[in-house]
Amino acid sequence: MKQHCDRIIRAGVLVTQDEQRRVLGDAAVAVTGDTIAAVDHADVIVAEWSTDAVSDLSGMLVMPGLVNAHTHVAMTFLRGLADDLPLMQWLTEHIFPVEKHLSAEIVEVSALLGCAEMAATGTTTLCDMYLIEDATFKAVDRAGLRMQGGEGLFAFPSPAYACIEDAFELVRRQHDRYSSHSRIRHAVMPHAVYTSNPEMLARCAALAGELGCGLHIHLAETAAETAQCLASFGKRPIPYCRDLGVLSPRTTVAHAVDVTDDELEILRESGICVAHNPVSNMKLASGAARVPEMLAAGICVGIGTDGAASNNGLNMFTEMKTCALLHKLRYADPTCVPAATVLDMATTGGAKCAGWPETGALVPGAKADLIALDLSAPNLQPLYSAVSHIVYAATGHEVTHTMVGGEFVYENGRHTRFDYPALLREVASIRRWVQKKITG
Amino acid sequence: MKQHCDRIIRAGVLVTQDEQRRVLGDAAVAVTGDTIAAVDHADVIVAEWSTDAVSDLSGMLVMPGLVNAHTHVAMTFLRGLADDLPLMQWLTEHIFPVEKHLSAEIVEVSALLGCAEMAATGTTTLCDMYLIEDATFKAVDRAGLRMQGGEGLFAFPSPAYACIEDAFELVRRQHDRYSSHSRIRHAVMPHAVYTSNPEMLARCAALAGELGCGLHIHLAETAAETAQCLASFGKRPIPYCRDLGVLSPRTTVAHAVDVTDDELEILRESGICVAHNPVSNMKLASGAARVPEMLAAGICVGIGTDGAASNNGLNMFTEMKTCALLHKLRYADPTCVPAATVLDMATTGGAKCAGWPETGALVPGAKADLIALDLSAPNLQPLYSAVSHIVYAATGHEVTHTMVGGEFVYENGRHTRFDYPALLREVASIRRWVQKKITG
Repeated sequence: MKQHCDRIIRAGVLVTQDEQRRVLGDAAVAVTGDTIAAVDHADVIVAEWSTDAVSDLSGMLVMPGLVNAHTHVAMTFLRGLADDLPLMQWLTEHIFPVEKHLSAEIVEVSALLGCAEMAATGTTTLCDMYLIEDATFKAVDRAGLRMQGGEGLFAFPSPAYACIEDAFELVRRQHDRYSSHSRIRHAVMPHAVYTSNPEMLARCAALAGELGCGLHIHLAETAAETAQCLASFGKRPIPYCRDLGVLSPRTTVAHAVDVTDDELEILRESGICVAHNPVSNMKLASGAARVPEMLAAGICVGIGTDGAASNNGLNMFTEMKTCALLHKLRYADPTCVPAATVLDMATTGGAKCAGWPETGALVPGAKADLIALDLSAPNLQPLYSAVSHIVYAATGHEVTHTMVGGEFVYENGRHTRFDYPALLREVASIRRWVQKKITG
Repeated sequence: MKQHCDRIIRAGVLVTQDEQRRVLGDAAVAVTGDTIAAVDHADVIVAEWSTDAVSDLSGMLVMPGLVNAHTHVAMTFLRGLADDLPLMQWLTEHIFPVEKHLSAEIVEVSALLGCAEMAATGTTTLCDMYLIEDATFKAVDRAGLRMQGGEGLFAFPSPAYACIEDAFELVRRQHDRYSSHSRIRHAVMPHAVYTSNPEMLARCAALAGELGCGLHIHLAETAAETAQCLASFGKRPIPYCRDLGVLSPRTTVAHAVDVTDDELEILRESGICVAHNPVSNMKLASGAARVPEMLAAGICVGIGTDGAASNNGLNMFTEMKTCALLHKLRYADPTCVPAATVLDMATTGGAKCAGWPETGALVPGAKADLIALDLSAPNLQPLYSAVSHIVYAATGHEVTHTMVGGEFVYENGRHTRFDYPALLREVASIRRWVQKKITG
């Protein structure tokens, strides 16, 4: 007697990212509720499972949804506003002057635009830190994507709070609100060493422990950050954070570019995850994270796009290719960070970074987060290696379907949960507002 | 009284790449035959020109077609066959064993697949060197793209010729055949220093001079090439080529990665163009060409994808973004190689590299080679700077229309000159043949 499932998805090629990293031809996935019930060759699934809903993706490559391990999704409204500038000039002259007028409405619309881009390019989960994060939670919930998010915490006022005490209250409220959400998890997110103080960082670490949630922080992004930390606190950023209790297995650090040998060992010992941002690190000329050495040390590394203001996209396919290229160049070794390693970072690795370890692979019991790529795209032809094509040949726009927790949020090029043309009209109005702020 | 033109193309945003690098809103292009008659604000064009054909691209960004300044378009059939390997192992164990069985049919089908990818991602002109180039000329002609091409010349037998004497006869035949073609130009293309000899290179230079055509050669791609050239000929590749007369204003050198200060000066003095291949150079870990210094010296630099076997795409948008990122990282300077510079390389610079200087800009008298990008794509929203979006935000798949010489070869996502599904069936048959060659 067959078991019943909610949906069977047939795949021309199925990249499972399971323990054996199996790639199956003519395969299928059985989904029940928001969870994968079974994964196997199509004939096996059809023999063992009955369903009322079949998605025939037999001309497609089906794979786990990608995980964007570090982003600021609501920064899409700043995309391309200013480029090719030194970090501090970019921030102080272009980004901060606009951000100081930020409203919940702008964050929500911008985050939804970012979700539209991510869903359309195969990202199912994001780890997000920004201002007025409540509005981002709302947008991501509406778009149907999966996330770990948190309010960016600063030692100074921010649009969502007047002082750090208020900020900590906000964090507890956010945590409570999403404590049992099926797709949204909360984490404590102190922004960075250079925008906080020791007391605040220690409290963040204690609070994350108390709440049993993740902690996410920008760390060791640039040599300038290191210099400032040394000047202010007498330590480099990584030992400074370790000594404050910030580095633990619940912690994900974004960037980790300016890292010594000793600090690599600190990162390894503390059990943190690293969210690597190759495009942003290159665009801002921050440098190259020591990813091959991190991986060799057993550190879990995910890949993030950072915000669209410094990327200028939220496209994990672009990010994967750049990741592979960056380290081959840096280590002068074409065998460095091969395609399979990059794909691991963008799926299973990122899932751990983003606090959703039950995603990132298509295995029974995992969340049904998957995407389909149209194999008839000229840049995916011919097909010898699915993993090579995912990392080196796909651009993200071959994605036809994006499923999160068993639901198609993007299907045949259409967003199923919101009115995309209406969203574009709202984005146009925000653009006019930004241009007034700049010129006025 | 209005002048008559064959077609008026209305553009929401028009990136002209003219002398002043004007970007016009609500603009139009008047086209007569294969040439641009006028470019201006839409109301001016409509007032001054009559036509029977209007293309309303008012929701689009219209810009010059991109120029792929160095590729081997027929290598698409090897896309993803082997990655993440040292150059010599990759060549000798994976690429050469398949290539030695190459036929005109494989080259023609593979080249057409590459043309499909290029047209769909906004490339209108390519500079191509490969084996059995006659078949590539045929495919590019069928696809309607513009090209400069030449048989790859080696000092040993190749599928298209048994000896170098035969090769030179073939070159003359190719030159004669395309001497008056509207979209195809021929160039003399010795493959590289390490696959030729001094006599052959000197003859190539003399022949290009005699025919009045371009000369294209891989040069100074890797440190290994330099070492081999020093060992064989007692000189580094660039002085060696200069002394043989290979470097002249008709010459384009691909790669130019391993270049000393003195050799930068040789390149500048000789008036050559450089085709820079950022993705391929990173993927094969060849290094980073000194592009900012070349540009500062006044050397014309274009951008190429190299072949799909080492990229693994033929997408100039990916290439532009990688180019901008690579040099910011290399020089630790976020202001290095800004977006406008990258776009110049991919349009006007590439046009000179590829022997089609009358393309690359939308100005009266230039060839009507242009592309349209759908501005409703989420990754192109909001729009503050068209040039930033082209280089940093677009992925190539926003391209809806590709026009070459006044003809739409790609229109609303459809290839107009060939049957794409039929092409995919031919590609599938080649894939089976390759897999037999590998396993057999």
